[in-house]
Amino acid sequence: MIRQTAYTVEPWCVREQTLDLDMLAQSESVFALSNGHIGLRGNLEEGEPHGLPGTYLNSVYELRPLPYAEGGYGYPESGQTVINVTNGKLIRLLVEDEPFDVRYGALRSHERVLDFREGTLTRSVEWTSPAGDSVRVRTVRLVSLVQRGVAAIHYEVEAVDRPVRVVVQSELVANESLPDLGKDPRMAGRLESPLVGEESVADKDTAVMVHRTRHSDLRVAAAMGHEIDGPEHTVTMDGFEDVCRYTVATRLQPGERLCLVKYLAYGWSSRRSRPAVHDQVIAALAAAKMTGWDGLVREQREFLDDFWAGADVELDGDAEVQQAVRFGLFHTLQAGARAERRSIPAKGLTGPGYDGHTFWDTESFVLPLLTYTRPEAAADALRWRHSTLDLAKERAEQLGLRGAAFPWRTIAGQECSGYWPAGTAAFHINADIADAVIRYYHATADEDFARDVGLELLVETARLWRSLGHHDTKGRFRIDGVTGPDEYSAVVDNNIYTNLMAQRNLRAAADVAEQYPEQARRMGVAEEETAEWRDAAAAVVIPWDKRLEVHPQNEGFTHHARWDFENTPPDHYPLLLNYPYFDIYRKQVVKQADLVLALHLRGDAFTDEQKVRNFAYYEGLTVRDSSLSACTQAVMAAETGHLELAHDYLGEAALMDLRDLEHNTRDGLHIASLAGAWNALVAGFGGMRQYTVRLSFAPRLPPGISRLAFRMRFRGRRLRVTITHDEVVYDLLSGDPLQIDHHGRPVDLNGGAVRMDVPPTPSRPTPAQPPGREPARRDKTAR
Amino acid sequence: MIRQTAYTVEPWCVREQTLDLDMLAQSESVFALSNGHIGLRGNLEEGEPHGLPGTYLNSVYELRPLPYAEGGYGYPESGQTVINVTNGKLIRLLVEDEPFDVRYGALRSHERVLDFREGTLTRSVEWTSPAGDSVRVRTVRLVSLVQRGVAAIHYEVEAVDRPVRVVVQSELVANESLPDLGKDPRMAGRLESPLVGEESVADKDTAVMVHRTRHSDLRVAAAMGHEIDGPEHTVTMDGFEDVCRYTVATRLQPGERLCLVKYLAYGWSSRRSRPAVHDQVIAALAAAKMTGWDGLVREQREFLDDFWAGADVELDGDAEVQQAVRFGLFHTLQAGARAERRSIPAKGLTGPGYDGHTFWDTESFVLPLLTYTRPEAAADALRWRHSTLDLAKERAEQLGLRGAAFPWRTIAGQECSGYWPAGTAAFHINADIADAVIRYYHATADEDFARDVGLELLVETARLWRSLGHHDTKGRFRIDGVTGPDEYSAVVDNNIYTNLMAQRNLRAAADVAEQYPEQARRMGVAEEETAEWRDAAAAVVIPWDKRLEVHPQNEGFTHHARWDFENTPPDHYPLLLNYPYFDIYRKQVVKQADLVLALHLRGDAFTDEQKVRNFAYYEGLTVRDSSLSACTQAVMAAETGHLELAHDYLGEAALMDLRDLEHNTRDGLHIASLAGAWNALVAGFGGMRQYTVRLSFAPRLPPGISRLAFRMRFRGRRLRVTITHDEVVYDLLSGDPLQIDHHGRPVDLNGGAVRMDVPPTPSRPTPAQPPGREPARRDKTAR
Repeated sequence: MIRQTAYTVEPWCVREQTLDLDMLAQSESVFALSNGHIGLRGNLEEGEPHGLPGTYLNSVYELRPLPYAEGGYGYPESGQTVINVTNGKLIRLLVEDEPFDVRYGALRSHERVLDFREGTLTRSVEWTSPAGDSVRVRTVRLVSLVQRGVAAIHYEVEAVDRPVRVVVQSELVANESLPDLGKDPRMAGRLESPLVGEESVADKDTAVMVHRTRHSDLRVAAAMGHEIDGPEHTVTMDGFEDVCRYTVATRLQPGERLCLVKYLAYGWSSRRSRPAVHDQVIAALAAAKMTGWDGLVREQREFLDDFWAGADVELDGDAEVQQAVRFGLFHTLQAGARAERRSIPAKGLTGPGYDGHTFWDTESFVLPLLTYTRPEAAADALRWRHSTLDLAKERAEQLGLRGAAFPWRTIAGQECSGYWPAGTAAFHINADIADAVIRYYHATADEDFARDVGLELLVETARLWRSLGHHDTKGRFRIDGVTGPDEYSAVVDNNIYTNLMAQRNLRAAADVAEQYPEQARRMGVAEEETAEWRDAAAAVVIPWDKRLEVHPQNEGFTHHARWDFENTPPDHYPLLLNYPYFDIYRKQVVKQADLVLALHLRGDAFTDEQKVRNFAYYEGLTVRDSSLSACTQAVMAAETGHLELAHDYLGEAALMDLRDLEHNTRDGLHIASLAGAWNALVAGFGGMRQYTVRLSFAPRLPPGISRLAFRMRFRGRRLRVTITHDEVVYDLLSGDPLQIDHHGRPVDLNGGAVRMDVPPTPSRPTPAQPPGREPARRDKTAR
Repeated sequence: MIRQTAYTVEPWCVREQTLDLDMLAQSESVFALSNGHIGLRGNLEEGEPHGLPGTYLNSVYELRPLPYAEGGYGYPESGQTVINVTNGKLIRLLVEDEPFDVRYGALRSHERVLDFREGTLTRSVEWTSPAGDSVRVRTVRLVSLVQRGVAAIHYEVEAVDRPVRVVVQSELVANESLPDLGKDPRMAGRLESPLVGEESVADKDTAVMVHRTRHSDLRVAAAMGHEIDGPEHTVTMDGFEDVCRYTVATRLQPGERLCLVKYLAYGWSSRRSRPAVHDQVIAALAAAKMTGWDGLVREQREFLDDFWAGADVELDGDAEVQQAVRFGLFHTLQAGARAERRSIPAKGLTGPGYDGHTFWDTESFVLPLLTYTRPEAAADALRWRHSTLDLAKERAEQLGLRGAAFPWRTIAGQECSGYWPAGTAAFHINADIADAVIRYYHATADEDFARDVGLELLVETARLWRSLGHHDTKGRFRIDGVTGPDEYSAVVDNNIYTNLMAQRNLRAAADVAEQYPEQARRMGVAEEETAEWRDAAAAVVIPWDKRLEVHPQNEGFTHHARWDFENTPPDHYPLLLNYPYFDIYRKQVVKQADLVLALHLRGDAFTDEQKVRNFAYYEGLTVRDSSLSACTQAVMAAETGHLELAHDYLGEAALMDLRDLEHNTRDGLHIASLAGAWNALVAGFGGMRQYTVRLSFAPRLPPGISRLAFRMRFRGRRLRVTITHDEVVYDLLSGDPLQIDHHGRPVDLNGGAVRMDVPPTPSRPTPAQPPGREPARRDKTAR
């Protein structure tokens, strides 16, 4: 676990000032650079020591068999696993006779800085070799947000107090050996050396390697080029199947520096030929060289300045969360900025966790942030879903359903879930995708997208719901045998979250089909079908427990035995690792917000009184064994007036990775939780909602935060909302006038600041959580 | 599929008069011999051709890994699989230069007869070699029901029309190569050559081989000894690690015979030493030789005469079912007669199907037959369960429950189910075991058993139920999240079958604990605990659908969509091979009797009107994709007055293997279905019930059966019940006077025949089955 002191608390960067080998893997995730296409873990340039070497290309995966003790119809037979592709980060250094390795000699100083505005990872090291030779090494690394296939490293080595002979080796290495992660040996065996060499060309300062994956048959190309500045030196270039090595040897006087700029280009394709992929990376390399190192840095800053102008969040009173929320915004942007019709995985491209799979996290937690801060990235992510529609339709057909059934977990669109009760049965992912389409459309008014992409996604998911549900003899539309967001209940009837999201899906499909009648007709949508969708939506079952006056998460839920929280030892969480599913499923215990997520996303379907009672009831059952819970609990705690509790949950979501709260940051960052922290601030304390086209706010701050200001993009405009305990200032920073709601009252924004009062917060007893599962207190003095 | 003409229809045997190589594997199952300890498939003596060579020893298994694409807490990591042990059936024959092989030369005549009264398999063949030499071969094979470790073969070869030189080779062969059954390659790989040689001793006419299983570490010994009668001959004996061969060479004149008696002895142990197991089989061999062939045959006949005297069923009007029900009685006896504290597998010892596992079939379908015909075998089977109590208690603890959780499928007592929704969740197996204990106790008044075995089984299963269920706020005792007998619904709340059987379990545990207070106290049972059991039993939830006026199989079942039977093509059954579980589970479709089984076993908990309505409702939903359904449907069809339908279902159950109705008789017989046919006759047309100590009958025959007579054992007595359309004759064949019920009226049996009238059958419309899933009509002329 990363200790409190691991990183200094600063508003615009994450800074590490000591190198702790035990948390190397975690820091590699925290310091990962990505543009959504290329991902480089924060491995040290010299390769060793490492926690887990990682270089990823979005959607480059290998297949592995999915075994079953007892098989079943429709079970996926092979899974997709992200692989570590050719490593171009490697720059080894020989100081006299000693390889530069921080485990030997003396590390006199160490600093790494991830800068959210520069988009760079900087490392500054002073090291004395076992033989007593000292060097300063300074590296700056970036993965270009502007040039999608490009990364670059600025490497500088300086002699300190006496002349030293140095040799710098810059490499491309394929099929690196990876440390054993203690997983299933079959999987590890399969993914040993996943790349088969096709070509390795090394000449002068440039090298290109092309490989193919063994089973998934994807072609991957990596290239490196170099520029050198420094005293007289010799260079050599060697090329082998899995290694290309550019070697520079020189002698440095004290204070003298050798400077190397390493340009990297990556490309891959499932279809294009070896020469085509080869040429693609050579071309990317040429463009990068033309831009030059300074140019790349400048572009990066400009890109990020533009992003922050429409996305920044300022927060007074909680410096840790201030840092964390910008860290989350930065990494979410990195995950999605240039994914461009590829998936945004749960870990982004920061580590191999969850096999590199994409889940509903993307649509439900990541895309809200991107939709209101970098909408083009949200659109691209949904275009990727759209590109997999044929696979989703095939899957629906295999399952005996109409329309499209999107996979619970995947890289390339095929279902990769090996446990159907928590995979295939979680049909809500289809409504989550639809919801992301609706949100994007409402937030951007992007009619091209609605017509060309959104409509078909809505239509095919609506068809799924219509065929998945049925009308009972009382005419109610039931959706039986599905799993909602809470994975501690499975295969249940009428999960309220699922039913309400399906309702929204069905209605939006009908609305957009009527808006684009010609396109809808081409999809075979007739009036009868839209009418059926509306009828089903209107009749959807929403169970209600009269006795408790709360909504059961699904039919029968509130009749189940309560989990025996009192006798569950703290080290028995997460429950799924310590209790059988059968026992977890049949009791009242909630892994992650489910009905509470419905209260947020379908707040229009509940009264205020219901929200208050439901939130309090589910707080007592929610153990938060998922990183996708705290942010939603924060949002609903804020809406129901429990502002300090909301602040606590915000901390849990925001600090997930900087504090390694789930002890698995080493496998990659929890992008959705980081994005969720933004949701907790904007939808929680900002009270931002957009149930329809209209944007509304209901800001209120907890005692521990004295000021919150956030920027967002909305239908071509930029807004800034600045909240203090007493008042809110709405600024229309750019774009046409707009009417919004402030605590239910319309407010016209015509440019310039509009000042509004914050109404008093109703006082209610704070709901209790299961013993030991309370969020950590943010404001130790209050409550 | 075995064609109608495969076997002649005869009352006391199964006779095959042609050898069809395509159905060799099926016939090997049908002609299997077993005593519950040793099982020999009906392989030809010469070994080839074969469908599937099979020699089994009860509970000799190998371990194999159970893989999961996504693991879970409490999932079993290794499974147990029955293995083919050392084959002692082999007797090869060389006729001049030609090996006797029915695929070459000319098979002039062929007959095999399985005789239910003799307990032997006889084979008579006349064969002409490709070179024109003719021989007659006659073999008689038995697995002794009296000497548990012994089998024997009487082998006779006769020259027909010219002198021939013959060589007979009698063998013991370990690690026979098995045909590929097209299963998981991991499993096949693991079970290739499962035996590791420890010893092979061959001398004179006797050979012994001792092997160990690789992973399960069981020691298996097999021995053979020989007697020869015939003209001058030479003998040799060879011994190797995996083969021992006894060779006899002679020259036969036309009409002259060589006769070989081969005695086989088997033994195994998980604990005893090599010499101990070696000596055990040598001793068994000595006993067999002392008895001699004629003695073994005589003992076998006497054993069976005694069995039939208390078990025979006579049936006029349906000769096929007459044969089939005796076939079923014979094979059920074979499966259980000498299992002696080992399990009775679903396939007996007739084939490797279901990995040789034992399920609830034993207690719920096989033990009723044995309880009333060979009660000592039923007691032994329950003593086996008792011997695994520690494992079941460990499993309960692992699952967070009290008491004992018996495995869904196992050989040695460990849970081997690799899919928990249809395995671990099927907790009803615990109540089924309790029910078998109660039944046996009521049927025998065996107080030693009740005190030493039954009480603890009842107490530990009652404890399981008490901890598995909980009281809701209305004080009702709910059992949530379990799977009932119908595997087309899973992980449901308040399955009525489970709840009613748990109720019976809880009450019986309290009753027997109060009967043996001292023993109960030693198990920690206090008054408070028995009171808790009775309270839970009294408050158990029994859902009721007011609108339909039927019992839903479980909570919510009748609200689910009906399966689309109309659009399910005939070749899409069984559904589980053609539709995903998610879809099957969430719809109204029933694989096998569940609520209808509750109507039978807990008929005391339903009114007649409820039985009629429930039976009709579930008939329309039951697709009978399990061999464990037809017999129960027969019983309840009979009780609700649908006698022709009952007759049809009886046919389905009884002819399961003789007609290969499920196309998998090759893997072994469906012992529970065969036993179920007895249930269909005795509990169906005989109306036999024993809800408490009292035995009751309500006989009624369908038009197609003119007379049904069955014998049974009951509390030290033998009874015969003879039913015609108009009257019933109750005969107390031996034992003390007894009062029974006949159609609800008490009848005193004091020895001699008591004649009673059969009341008229109420007329009701016959319920419909899903299209295409109707049972085949037995009586084509009626209805």
